[in-house]
Formats: sequence, structure tokens, C-alpha cells
Amino acid sequence: MSDDEQAIRALIAAWMDASKRGDLDTVLGLMSDDVVFMVPGREPFGKEAYAAQTRAMAQTAMQVEGESEIAELQVLGDWAWLRNRLRITVTPPGKDPVLRSGYTLTLLRKNAQGRWQLTRDANLLA
Amino acid sequence: MSDDEQAIRALIAAWMDASKRGDLDTVLGLMSDDVVFMVPGREPFGKEAYAAQTRAMAQTAMQVEGESEIAELQVLGDWAWLRNRLRITVTPPGKDPVLRSGYTLTLLRKNAQGRWQLTRDANLLA
Repeated sequence: MSDDEQAIRALIAAWMDASKRGDLDTVLGLMSDDVVFMVPGREPFGKEAYAAQTRAMAQTAMQVEGESEIAELQVLGDWAWLRNRLRITVTPPGKDPVLRSGYTLTLLRKNAQGRWQLTRDANLLA
Repeated sequence: MSDDEQAIRALIAAWMDASKRGDLDTVLGLMSDDVVFMVPGREPFGKEAYAAQTRAMAQTAMQVEGESEIAELQVLGDWAWLRNRLRITVTPPGKDPVLRSGYTLTLLRKNAQGRWQLTRDANLLA
């Protein structure tokens, strides 16, 4: 496995871990400033909207646990793409957990400091 | 605009045009044999499933008209990615048309013959 591939796998693991801990600052550092997130049923959104949405979610005391498994990963110089299988369990306070699963198609880019960052993400989670 | 970018824009235009005409063979020629399509709410699927689904759709006499507008396009050697804004009007026989709109995140690859082909596609159409 190349150094780049290792670094990208570590990035995804760090993202999942920081999300679980509610460490938004760490997650924001793992994405480029011009990141674009795409999800079904709404317009694409960027870093600020991601942060606002995550903070709003934290207010709800909704528990979110996620697992990810990289199905494909390809490094193309300073760019890379991957397909990630996500399984997310969302537990609203006082309610039964709901399992959501699906794939992402994700683009990553190595920044000027040589650090990989997520830069485009299509999340098909149902 | 580079030759590659022009070729990719022509590919997308040919795809939309062939889809509209119901020319499935042409569409199938514009994707790699190992293509993976991702849509919300179901498992990823490949070329044969795409063909079967398109043939089944043709049986329903459902009218499908689409427009696409490339929002971003980046060539990375023999790979490229793009974000495409789609507006699809679906008209079931005897019913009112339904507008569906949304984005794709799409990967393309230049094959051994130098032809660009669609190879991974995440379609977030709501």
C-alpha cells in the first residue's frame, strides 16, 4: 500500500472517529475550504453549512454511530477518489435506533502542505 | 478548453442525446465495462443492470426528457471528474410530468483506444 493510500485511509478513520466524539474542529480540518457536499434532495453545500448542520445535530442529543469500509480507492497524483460504504446508526433521544446504510463517492486532494483533504463528496445514504 | 475537456463535454452531450432517442447501444458504448452506478436507496449496480433497467423503462412508455449542465470538470491525466446538474422530466403515460433535479458526481477514464468513458457515477437526483 502506498504512503498516499495509507494517509487517505488514516484520514477516513480520523474523520469517523472525530465525528463519533463530536470533535467538529478536527473534522473541519480534514476537508478543503472549497469542499462541496452533495446529498439527495437538497442543493450542494459547503464547509460552513456542514459545520452549522453538525452543531444543530449536536443540540438534538441524537446519537450517531458510524462505520465505514472503503470499497475502492485510487490515487491519481495529488488527487484521489474512493467509494466508501457507510453504516450509520441514528438514535433519537428516547427512540429506537435507525440504521442507514449506503455509499459515498468521494474526491480528495493533497494540499500545498502535503496533507490529504476531502474536497467533493456525494453521499447516497438512504 | 483542452481537447480532453472538449471530448468529455461531447461525451456528456452524446449520452443525453442518445438517452432521449432511446439509443441504448450508444449509451452503453459511452461507459466502461466495469462502470459502477450509485443512486440513493439501492445497492450500486453495473452495466448489465443499467441496460436491463433502461429496457424495462422503455416498456412503460414513460417519457423521459433531460437537460444537463456541467458545473465543474477537472481532467487528471487519463482520469477526470465532473459535477453535472441534471433536470429530468418524467411523464408517465396519461399523467402530468414530474420534474426531478439534482447533481451527479462522475468519474471518467480514457480507455486504451484514447476514448473517454464514464466509469463511476453517483446520481443524487431527488
